[in-house]
Amino acid sequence: MALSAIKTGRRNESGIAAVIAALSERFGERLQTGEAVRAQHAHTTTYIPGQLPDAVVFPQSSEEVQAIVALASEHKVPLIAFGTGSSLEGHINAPFGGISVDMGRMDRVLEVNASDFDCTVEPGITREALNTYLRDTGLFFPIDPGANASIGGMASTRASGTNAVRYGTMKDNVLALTVVTAGAKEIRTAHRAKKSSTGYDLTRLFVGAEGTLGIITSITLRLQGIPETIAGGVCSFPTTADACNTVILTIQSGIPVARIELLDETQMRASNAYSGLTFPEQPTLFVEFHGNPETVALQSRQFAEIAAEFGGTEFRSTANLEERNQLWKARHNAYWAQKSLMPGGGIISTDVCVPISRLADCVEATQEDIRAHGLLAPIVGHAGDGNFHVGLLFDDKDPADIAKAEAFVARLNDRALSMDGTCTGEHGIGQGKMPFLEKELGDALDLMRQIKHGLDPDNIFNPGKIFAM
Amino acid sequence: MALSAIKTGRRNESGIAAVIAALSERFGERLQTGEAVRAQHAHTTTYIPGQLPDAVVFPQSSEEVQAIVALASEHKVPLIAFGTGSSLEGHINAPFGGISVDMGRMDRVLEVNASDFDCTVEPGITREALNTYLRDTGLFFPIDPGANASIGGMASTRASGTNAVRYGTMKDNVLALTVVTAGAKEIRTAHRAKKSSTGYDLTRLFVGAEGTLGIITSITLRLQGIPETIAGGVCSFPTTADACNTVILTIQSGIPVARIELLDETQMRASNAYSGLTFPEQPTLFVEFHGNPETVALQSRQFAEIAAEFGGTEFRSTANLEERNQLWKARHNAYWAQKSLMPGGGIISTDVCVPISRLADCVEATQEDIRAHGLLAPIVGHAGDGNFHVGLLFDDKDPADIAKAEAFVARLNDRALSMDGTCTGEHGIGQGKMPFLEKELGDALDLMRQIKHGLDPDNIFNPGKIFAM
Repeated sequence: MALSAIKTGRRNESGIAAVIAALSERFGERLQTGEAVRAQHAHTTTYIPGQLPDAVVFPQSSEEVQAIVALASEHKVPLIAFGTGSSLEGHINAPFGGISVDMGRMDRVLEVNASDFDCTVEPGITREALNTYLRDTGLFFPIDPGANASIGGMASTRASGTNAVRYGTMKDNVLALTVVTAGAKEIRTAHRAKKSSTGYDLTRLFVGAEGTLGIITSITLRLQGIPETIAGGVCSFPTTADACNTVILTIQSGIPVARIELLDETQMRASNAYSGLTFPEQPTLFVEFHGNPETVALQSRQFAEIAAEFGGTEFRSTANLEERNQLWKARHNAYWAQKSLMPGGGIISTDVCVPISRLADCVEATQEDIRAHGLLAPIVGHAGDGNFHVGLLFDDKDPADIAKAEAFVARLNDRALSMDGTCTGEHGIGQGKMPFLEKELGDALDLMRQIKHGLDPDNIFNPGKIFAM
Repeated sequence: MALSAIKTGRRNESGIAAVIAALSERFGERLQTGEAVRAQHAHTTTYIPGQLPDAVVFPQSSEEVQAIVALASEHKVPLIAFGTGSSLEGHINAPFGGISVDMGRMDRVLEVNASDFDCTVEPGITREALNTYLRDTGLFFPIDPGANASIGGMASTRASGTNAVRYGTMKDNVLALTVVTAGAKEIRTAHRAKKSSTGYDLTRLFVGAEGTLGIITSITLRLQGIPETIAGGVCSFPTTADACNTVILTIQSGIPVARIELLDETQMRASNAYSGLTFPEQPTLFVEFHGNPETVALQSRQFAEIAAEFGGTEFRSTANLEERNQLWKARHNAYWAQKSLMPGGGIISTDVCVPISRLADCVEATQEDIRAHGLLAPIVGHAGDGNFHVGLLFDDKDPADIAKAEAFVARLNDRALSMDGTCTGEHGIGQGKMPFLEKELGDALDLMRQIKHGLDPDNIFNPGKIFAM
């Protein structure tokens, strides 16, 4: 955060001009400099003001990415890899200018190895497109951050989302990458074996690196078998603490929920209004189970018992596709429902994550903080992972309101840290969380800087993100 | 491999002498220079000749590790962190001399958070000691590489073993680390939240770094609930291909086996003789299921059906502790059983890993190779992960036999690579696999070197391992 701290940096004007000229010659209409396109490529679903790149290039192959990197290296010009622009912390801004590298045209499925439960894709494919492609194989890619993000973007922010409580995050589901690095060479971080001890784990170094170490050109993903039975349901609780304690006990009991999402009363009010639903406007859990009919029924019963202990409404899970779709569509639209509570206002979507035993403490203290400061801030989150989002609404034209919002976010992040948690469970650092990362990891940031300096000595890959160099 | 390539390097004699003098003053009897102790600290269960450190120091705290690193940095002297010495690829050798840092006295459990399923330990604790400590909590740490290795060593080689098919490897089960790095500062890579997107994944960078980037001083581990029911059994097959195909179909069917280990006919003969057992000397699977009585019974039935399809003997699983212990003791002693086939000879334990669909192809081709070259080489492995070990016996006094063994290993690693696999599923690179890593990852090694150079500019941490600088 600290919006005031996000500045436009020193620009390498002559280098940028030279790169644009060369790219224009090579890429023709696939190099664009119009303001609308540039603005689109700086626009993120974020409270952070856009910082436009000088041009946008649309490569169609790894060879083209290598050519772009070679040019940028020669002229020391920033390259900002772009997926779909759904990141939340200013990841795709261009504080030093430079070229946005839109990976959207590299969206092919290169290989599906159904018998090994893996596939290799180009980075520009979105998760929904991938799952549509996979439909006939009986397999699916489980990571679901809500937005229809690109797989490359999801890898770069170490995304997770609703299914992570069961299937893990991108770090657990990327098997290998090819990446074009500073020397304009494409390297491969691993092969398709399920596990490997081949020195430094480069795969997981690039997952979460936010495009600051190179440009990902292909991604080998683990896939999952589509469960025989998917069933889900809704449960309302008297208080948020009751809902959180239900989550805690569900996780501690080892019930393998596939999704367990918390929506507080403000969120339920927003979601009802936005999605035309009629759920009780009370703290609520959306829950889903994956398995065969017997295991799903068993898990559902076990969950219902725990929920009842904490005063939850009677839990009934359904495998009915239409009912389930309505539920998860409402969940996926939570962000837009939040925004609709204050049309035209700004919104900050926070994403602290704490050890599961502290979930109720952290959510409760945060709700008290919201009340004490008279804020409008629905809460929704991947409660099973101890990860929740506050959708903080504020008047982004009013300096006093901005300051108030920033102070709230700082208190929230401090609270999570005091509970041995993190300021970001899944959104990443980008520009917005730089000061909090410093607080969270301290001297460890020096190591990140050393790695960045070693792998990208001219600081051409997405400069001004994660940490100041 | 290429034993001939493993040389003793240039030694910094004056620096080593200065560090030993200073350590001796500070650590008194906890700094030892006797040959027996030094030889112990170069001895690994490996075919690679020992290269003794000049001294062994036994720190008892992170502060002491920091003091050791500060001294070594000042004088540019190698430090080789030592756990229990059970690594297999010369990881703890001292090709340039220097100081072995024996972490065995830093073996405390610092914290158990039972309600979050995690604990924090010092690196010297062994996995068996940790599980003994945890017994009353209802939790256990699942990673089991066979040897009673230290947790620090297991983290450093990205170890896995029999349970990894269900619980993952060390990369999946280390939540956070503290590490003393080149500046002699202790950094923390993460906190206890289950997931995080805080920039570069330093936790997973140190997991598998083989002690080349710093010395781990504490490890926060994910724990698992002890299953209500554990049941296992044995199944023999007409051919190794039948056993492998049973594994492939079991995994592809999504049966969540906790362990599924392949032992070929030569291994069964060795294990029967060594452990006093009377199993049929045929290709065999040792299988284990974790869950509640119903799920374990279901999984066991499903597995039995698949095994029967491939001509397996009738499968009966038992929860009887004594029977199970006998089984897994035999499995854990596989390495010693192999060695007993050629007393006084050398043994190379390989560890290729391939995508599961290629397991039968890779094992069969390897057995043909063994036969064609008249080698004695039992096979045992974590078949569910596509990972298997050939225990290649050879006369380590006979240059011709050494050359023959090396040629076999090279062919095996090439075979795995041609199947999109890896030369090392879990043992790591150390000294022995350096040429194969080069072949497997090519230019990606440059990135590893850049990271190493950035984080350890004086190359004091375990030099001469993973790659040549």
